[in-house]
Amino acid sequence: MLEFTRTAMPGRVVFGAGAARSALAGEVAALRVSRVLLVTTRRGEPLARSLAERLPVVDVFTDVREHVPAEIACAALDVATRSHVDCLLSVGGGASVGTAKAVALSMRVPIVAVPTTYSGSEMTPVWGRTEGGEKHTGRSMDALPRLVVYDPDLTVGLPPAITAASGMNALAHAVRAHAADPVTALVGHEAVRVLSAGLPKAVAEQDRTEALYGAYLAASAFAVVGSGPHHKLCHALGGAYGLPHAPTHAVLLPYTAARTGGVDADGLRGLAERIGAPTSLREIGLNAEDLDDAVRRTPDAAALLTAAYEGRWPA
Amino acid sequence: MLEFTRTAMPGRVVFGAGAARSALAGEVAALRVSRVLLVTTRRGEPLARSLAERLPVVDVFTDVREHVPAEIACAALDVATRSHVDCLLSVGGGASVGTAKAVALSMRVPIVAVPTTYSGSEMTPVWGRTEGGEKHTGRSMDALPRLVVYDPDLTVGLPPAITAASGMNALAHAVRAHAADPVTALVGHEAVRVLSAGLPKAVAEQDRTEALYGAYLAASAFAVVGSGPHHKLCHALGGAYGLPHAPTHAVLLPYTAARTGGVDADGLRGLAERIGAPTSLREIGLNAEDLDDAVRRTPDAAALLTAAYEGRWPA
Repeated sequence: MLEFTRTAMPGRVVFGAGAARSALAGEVAALRVSRVLLVTTRRGEPLARSLAERLPVVDVFTDVREHVPAEIACAALDVATRSHVDCLLSVGGGASVGTAKAVALSMRVPIVAVPTTYSGSEMTPVWGRTEGGEKHTGRSMDALPRLVVYDPDLTVGLPPAITAASGMNALAHAVRAHAADPVTALVGHEAVRVLSAGLPKAVAEQDRTEALYGAYLAASAFAVVGSGPHHKLCHALGGAYGLPHAPTHAVLLPYTAARTGGVDADGLRGLAERIGAPTSLREIGLNAEDLDDAVRRTPDAAALLTAAYEGRWPA
Repeated sequence: MLEFTRTAMPGRVVFGAGAARSALAGEVAALRVSRVLLVTTRRGEPLARSLAERLPVVDVFTDVREHVPAEIACAALDVATRSHVDCLLSVGGGASVGTAKAVALSMRVPIVAVPTTYSGSEMTPVWGRTEGGEKHTGRSMDALPRLVVYDPDLTVGLPPAITAASGMNALAHAVRAHAADPVTALVGHEAVRVLSAGLPKAVAEQDRTEALYGAYLAASAFAVVGSGPHHKLCHALGGAYGLPHAPTHAVLLPYTAARTGGVDADGLRGLAERIGAPTSLREIGLNAEDLDDAVRRTPDAAALLTAAYEGRWPA
């Protein structure tokens, strides 16, 4: 018995070393937009400006933050509105594209994303916004980038620790896709294969192409299926105790995969150790009191959280 | 060096035995449409009406023909306009959905497709229209169905000859996808695998699910990559000598695959023989004069056409 429903996501992807320099201008011109807001981090601004040199950039917003605080979203929308932009160009990781999404939700202008990490947000219609210590998320086609330019050259030099944690976040997307319709699961399995081969090379700065390709595959599959138990647990911990996004995924993924089954959890843990991703909640900033509180709040995940806190892994 | 561009297609798919009866009404209701034009064949009308029982059908158009003659497209548009429809429901194969596409191009209303063959047109933005003996084709997002309900039960009883030819047409979609970006190629490879396993079972009426799933995979990959040399040759022959669409694909696919390489052409020919698909152009209605003419027009395909005319296959 084969039964499923599947809602495929539209969008154009250009992938290739150097594509952000060679293809971006032509691709954006094809969108027939004339007033671009550049959305990036303060640190990323020089790179973003150089990539956007031949684009009609009318303003730049660099005050992005992880999890998109509401006041940042408002500030970005304010800039976009005053500058009458008709396109948002995000250059960066999840924080940059997340801010562009918050603006697009109100202005309904297309997003062009040039990712520099493996966060994968550029492939999904999922938006997020944090207010009063709580993160609200939703899905909207207005938040789905119209065009994504993946250029492995832009990920060269991403520090090993960020590469590893961001890569495990991508793996969490791929693993989640195993629970989806068969087409999405097929892409998810390929993503696990590509990421498992590519992340060690990316951390070692041998080759960056495979890891970025795997992250794209994983995110495109995740976009169809959406969050599962693993992602909900990560978001709850992140929201309540201010844990960093990607490292939380890195630590918890092998534990949640072991609980869900159907995935090589030992392999995921082995990969995390091999690439130097964090393996305990303690090392990424959870303290003992927070652990007690988390166990109280989510009793069904008590054993998992206690093991993950110490980073113990059954042989 | 990994380099590609890919424009993904949106759309919702519901797949499952009985889905056309159990899920169609709810899915169409979710589109918030209120005036549906049923597009189907005269022979398919009773089935189509029974599937659409709980839908707000305001009119029915049954005069569909293969390759969508311009006068048929006009007649269908006329009915749709006079009935003020806001949705087109096609129940049938390529001719039915092709006619719905012709209407949607003008009226820009959503198409819901319930396929009863493996033609795959329901997954693509490709439209076609025949005028003065020539077939014009194009791509438009207005022609891409918004919702497709695949119900293997509807293909039960499809005669073996049509099952085989339509199945080979689907295989041609899958093989074409091998030349595409790596994600599309991945889906294309899976489609070849699923169709090769499923078509013999479908022809034998043992199981219809796999074949329909494979046809969906193949069409969804083909939608991204579009026509190649094989499809152009088939369309040229079909247009010039009035050959039937699916059987032409069935005959030529092993020959064009052998020429292109990268595909198990022997395996395709073996499958065609096993499922009783036509294996020579002669048996599907090409005469000797047409062959001479075709060879004169396409000298680079002369050897291929001559072999395919007789159905000879090198051991």
